[in-house]
Amino acid sequence: MTSKTPDSWISDRSRLFDSSGIRKVFELAAKLKDPVNLSIGQPDFDVPEKVKAACIDAIQHGKNAYSLTQGIAPLREKLQREIDARYGHEDRQVFITSGTSGGLVLSMLAMVNPGDEVIVFDPYFVMYTALVKMVGGVPVLIDTYPDFRIDIAKVEAAITPRTKLILFNSPANPTGITPTAEETRALAELANDRGIALISDEIYSQFVYEGQLNTPADTNPNTIVIDGFSKSHAMTGWRVGWLHGPKAIIETMIKIQQYSFVCAPQPAQWAGLAAMDVDMAGYRADYQHKRDMLLEGLQGYYEFTKPGGAFYLFPKAPKGMSGAEFVTKAIEKGLLVIPGNVFSERDTHFRISYAAADSTIQRGIEILQQLAK
Amino acid sequence: MTSKTPDSWISDRSRLFDSSGIRKVFELAAKLKDPVNLSIGQPDFDVPEKVKAACIDAIQHGKNAYSLTQGIAPLREKLQREIDARYGHEDRQVFITSGTSGGLVLSMLAMVNPGDEVIVFDPYFVMYTALVKMVGGVPVLIDTYPDFRIDIAKVEAAITPRTKLILFNSPANPTGITPTAEETRALAELANDRGIALISDEIYSQFVYEGQLNTPADTNPNTIVIDGFSKSHAMTGWRVGWLHGPKAIIETMIKIQQYSFVCAPQPAQWAGLAAMDVDMAGYRADYQHKRDMLLEGLQGYYEFTKPGGAFYLFPKAPKGMSGAEFVTKAIEKGLLVIPGNVFSERDTHFRISYAAADSTIQRGIEILQQLAK
Repeated sequence: MTSKTPDSWISDRSRLFDSSGIRKVFELAAKLKDPVNLSIGQPDFDVPEKVKAACIDAIQHGKNAYSLTQGIAPLREKLQREIDARYGHEDRQVFITSGTSGGLVLSMLAMVNPGDEVIVFDPYFVMYTALVKMVGGVPVLIDTYPDFRIDIAKVEAAITPRTKLILFNSPANPTGITPTAEETRALAELANDRGIALISDEIYSQFVYEGQLNTPADTNPNTIVIDGFSKSHAMTGWRVGWLHGPKAIIETMIKIQQYSFVCAPQPAQWAGLAAMDVDMAGYRADYQHKRDMLLEGLQGYYEFTKPGGAFYLFPKAPKGMSGAEFVTKAIEKGLLVIPGNVFSERDTHFRISYAAADSTIQRGIEILQQLAK
Repeated sequence: MTSKTPDSWISDRSRLFDSSGIRKVFELAAKLKDPVNLSIGQPDFDVPEKVKAACIDAIQHGKNAYSLTQGIAPLREKLQREIDARYGHEDRQVFITSGTSGGLVLSMLAMVNPGDEVIVFDPYFVMYTALVKMVGGVPVLIDTYPDFRIDIAKVEAAITPRTKLILFNSPANPTGITPTAEETRALAELANDRGIALISDEIYSQFVYEGQLNTPADTNPNTIVIDGFSKSHAMTGWRVGWLHGPKAIIETMIKIQQYSFVCAPQPAQWAGLAAMDVDMAGYRADYQHKRDMLLEGLQGYYEFTKPGGAFYLFPKAPKGMSGAEFVTKAIEKGLLVIPGNVFSERDTHFRISYAAADSTIQRGIEILQQLAK
């Protein structure tokens, strides 16, 4: 025997990021009896019946083997038609990923070299900085507090010769913010002018409550768009998303997918095809109602910026308290929310998810009102 | 606009490996009318009915959201009990992966630093060398021709201070070879003595036709074992596998899974639980029969080493012909097989998959007999 124990085998990249702080709250949650759980980033409804039926039909009809790496043709073709009609870009191709996280992983592997810089808006979705580090990249954070708007001058100032990629997310997790058409256009133009790749993570695209989703792909034809069925159709555990962008990039991602994800689960891809025909207006209205209930309940109690989409609110912790301290107090009262430092360099805020039953949101509001005093 | 087009965004690592040669044969196959297809590396039977039923039941009962990162508890616990009973290792923990390829990806990310060397036996499963390169590692190939046995002296000679990992695969793809108990033990001991991580890819463990599977985990308690339901239960498109090994490594992989695969598809995990209770003896006997039919049909026509498992035969191309040249001739006759250079530095052999209907195998034998003349 040598002294090289399994511990010594762990790669350097693994030590660059921690287990998600969200997971820690989930583990706490498992120990609480009947908690008021406003920590979960997934819909509280189940997969729509028509979508379940399509998945079951695929299973029963033997559509259980590997699909093509890039996904089943009917789903790709239907998405491609929608994308072509929406954007009319000549060089825009879609393929099917294993959820939006699959699309994010492939984006990093396909584009980010060790030492490359990736611009990320802070607060950010937890996966962004971890993934950038995993491939040897350097996250360059742009602080967007207090109102979470995109200040294009700050982005310009952050660009260096090593900047490879900008990660944009609207509606955003954890803030629910939807950047304006002007902000989105300015960012898209800046990326285009500088020849920097721009990823638009649009996983919450079905949850926009005011106006339309502003996407940088409207302005910048080389924008890489990531989307999926997980949040819109409660298919988080089915692992199907899609990604579209310039062909050269897509072909590279498909090549990497061969050796990593292989393909998205086949029956779930057929379910995705059915999901495209499900009218989500009722679900959206339901979530808008939940948002408005929460905003009304916390008005005057907490400082926050009104979210235009997704299912999150990101209020500031009461005066004199860090986000983490506040969350500890909340958990003592049986309320689960996520401390802002999970998503940020700052520890001043906390994330509430209103993807929950109305009665749970109501109980949450009551506890939050008490905690604000 | 700058000159930085999307082409320029492609990462260096993406350029280190090509699209799989298997894919190229598949694309050819799509153009042929009624080919004799012996190229496919997946079962020709469908998912067993009981397993389908379990998946459908999970879908209908709302088990459609994210599972825990490490997988659903009932499946993990059932696997852990089997593993504990089989090995009795104190420090051996299992978790659920997105297929065995998910386990391979996580292994590379969790252990291989840029510049680390990974020993791979040639011929090898196509994914191995691509994945090693993807994370910046260096594949060190050990030639095992002509009989595909493991020569432990060659392995010893290949070890350097940068050797991090050895990739072992039994029954092997593309040869179907099952190393002997002695070879397996010697390799396990060598890895243990030198403190080198050893991965045992056992995805074909249910397809062993003579005796029992020899696993290095019997000798080396730090062996990392990868297995899955894809090949045994025809669940290739469902993306569920498992991986077990020393806790420190497993915890690192689970951490990386949070930011990459997230979790294996949840309904398919419940199906995996049911799959563990399906008796595979009939399927195994069926495949042994297919193997014997193929061996008998090609005896005297081709040089090959009798495979002890999986569903592949790896014969030498007829004299004066490279593997690729032979495959071109075979395709002209409507027979699809894979050239050996897809799996090897050498281009002397070709892979036949007998995961096909008996009648297809029979037609394949006839064409192969003609081609041998």
